[in-house]
Amino acid sequence: MIKIYEETLLYDFYGELLTDRQKTVYEEVVLHDLSLGEAAEEFGISRQGVHDMIKRSTKALKDYEDKLHLVSKFLDLKDKVHQIEHLTDHPKVKQLAEEILEEL
Amino acid sequence: MIKIYEETLLYDFYGELLTDRQKTVYEEVVLHDLSLGEAAEEFGISRQGVHDMIKRSTKALKDYEDKLHLVSKFLDLKDKVHQIEHLTDHPKVKQLAEEILEEL
Repeated sequence: MIKIYEETLLYDFYGELLTDRQKTVYEEVVLHDLSLGEAAEEFGISRQGVHDMIKRSTKALKDYEDKLHLVSKFLDLKDKVHQIEHLTDHPKVKQLAEEILEEL
Repeated sequence: MIKIYEETLLYDFYGELLTDRQKTVYEEVVLHDLSLGEAAEEFGISRQGVHDMIKRSTKALKDYEDKLHLVSKFLDLKDKVHQIEHLTDHPKVKQLAEEILEEL
């Protein structure tokens, strides 16, 4: 899996379990690609502090996935619903598949 | 939603985030319907201790759901896949829908 995609998925599923501070820093640095130096200035902490916070947040997100496996279940499910969407000619089935994919 | 079904779903999704001790007590009392008195004897704690532990575990599971909403997403998704399964005549689509329902 492409790293940024994995990071985004992990954050989508489990981000709400981080603290507000962790969320803000993770979003800026990992998802919006702010540099450690820029983040350090923005949040008034050292570059090392930013680095450590990201590392702890990433570990927390991965630990949740190791316990709950929701991202891997979601990817498998999404693949199957995509197959349904492509295989079916039934308008209502296609619509349901599209709704599922939008919600996932 | 029927209460035991809700409790089972919450535990299915988030149970792995409880401690081993919380999991054991929750399973025996909530899912396997052991009485507080029986659980107190089995785990060597007071009935009040069992009661408090269940209350804390239930609150933790509900707090995870309030943050992540995975059970409610799952129920909505399951309903849509059931509709697909009933509507379709396509053997492969039906098979995929059944696979999804087994995995959910």
